[in-house]
Amino acid sequence: MTSSPALQARLAIREGRHIGPTHGLAPGFVQCNLVIVRQPLAYDFLVYCQRNPRACPVLEITDPGDPEPRRLAAGADLRSDLPKYAVYRQGRRMGDETRITHLWEPGLVSFLIGSGISFDQALERAGVPTHQHRWVLRTTLPTVPAGPFRGPLIVTMRWLTPAQAIVATQVTARFPWNHGAPLHIGDPAAIGADLAHPLHGLPVGTIPSEYVPCFWACGVTPQAAAEAAGIDLMITHAPAHGFISDLKSDEICLP
Amino acid sequence: MTSSPALQARLAIREGRHIGPTHGLAPGFVQCNLVIVRQPLAYDFLVYCQRNPRACPVLEITDPGDPEPRRLAAGADLRSDLPKYAVYRQGRRMGDETRITHLWEPGLVSFLIGSGISFDQALERAGVPTHQHRWVLRTTLPTVPAGPFRGPLIVTMRWLTPAQAIVATQVTARFPWNHGAPLHIGDPAAIGADLAHPLHGLPVGTIPSEYVPCFWACGVTPQAAAEAAGIDLMITHAPAHGFISDLKSDEICLP
Repeated sequence: MTSSPALQARLAIREGRHIGPTHGLAPGFVQCNLVIVRQPLAYDFLVYCQRNPRACPVLEITDPGDPEPRRLAAGADLRSDLPKYAVYRQGRRMGDETRITHLWEPGLVSFLIGSGISFDQALERAGVPTHQHRWVLRTTLPTVPAGPFRGPLIVTMRWLTPAQAIVATQVTARFPWNHGAPLHIGDPAAIGADLAHPLHGLPVGTIPSEYVPCFWACGVTPQAAAEAAGIDLMITHAPAHGFISDLKSDEICLP
Repeated sequence: MTSSPALQARLAIREGRHIGPTHGLAPGFVQCNLVIVRQPLAYDFLVYCQRNPRACPVLEITDPGDPEPRRLAAGADLRSDLPKYAVYRQGRRMGDETRITHLWEPGLVSFLIGSGISFDQALERAGVPTHQHRWVLRTTLPTVPAGPFRGPLIVTMRWLTPAQAIVATQVTARFPWNHGAPLHIGDPAAIGADLAHPLHGLPVGTIPSEYVPCFWACGVTPQAAAEAAGIDLMITHAPAHGFISDLKSDEICLP
């Protein structure tokens, strides 16, 4: 009996046979960022996501206390099916966990949010490399606040050739539920991108003249907002350790 | 001093100089469906919209008690800037109002939801007629429930020639925040479309063989769900009397 690559990957993670980042696991399936908050804050968090849809495209919201993402992956368990979780208390990252069963509460609400990893395969098919010249950066662009959630837009920067930038714009525009088209192309200073302090990636050197920096809204944005809000408890995926859904990326792209 | 056609239309409505449907007013600007509920139900309603994104693409959520849609139309007033409102109590439509200032409460939350009217102009530009052979119908397709909100998907049916249907699919796919591409083309029975009891439009006759019925998710869906839930108070736009935003349809379409 065969099962889908997504299910196989989730079981390998649940049983501890796969540890480490999920990049490259079950290619072609939508990978999601995870944010878990207590129910009283769920409304403000969801409004924040709606007001910043390019950074926070919500793909599923679980019912309070329900660890199963019934629409994106029936039978999965959000308490054990990601390889690493980050636990925040009062807005501070207190430590990482490989499962969160012992931290579960009846009022926890889980948000699965689209991730740019989901269109990497489509970019590769179109000849756009995705494994190099890639950083996560803060900008000085504000997000639209909701309740206690506010803060700067976080972006993914990729350096591409002009021809690749044009193709990448067309390809990613077809994935509005995974951040969509770039929000900026060209001078990093125009959006106040903080090249000196990347949140992810090696130090940014001088941009070679043959490349155009391209910027996409990044799913780290809502986590940063929740962190800045200093809320009591938030659990997220650890960076690069996402949730692999049963949804195929090509199923939620546009013609 | 000139002002935008959208602002002019809203002022004409506010001052009673325009009464009647908004179809054709301020062409090219996004027109929205409106749903107003009390705050305790706002979370469930928003989750319902997220779980049924093709029928309920939320474009703005106001803060509780705030009648101004600050992102879609700064300075507008949702209590007076629509020509007609429908007021529901315990799920029953009790009557229509031309303004709702006297019904306003501090805890009311307004949802502005994308509408297919917004892509009519793009369809017309592409040679697809939008004023004829158009109905709003119930189907037997269930929506995904959230809290008390549940019920069938409501669709807009248009009869198009095969060539028009292909163009209309391409054009509307570019407007994912206004229902996007058709959800079905062809036999109405495949989605249980209730041709005998249209919610809007004249009786449906026999479909001439030169036409293909095309079906889009319809923004009446969340209203029908709220109606079926029998919630204490819900205020919506009256059918065909939408809210005209400052956002241009072409600004939220995809390349």
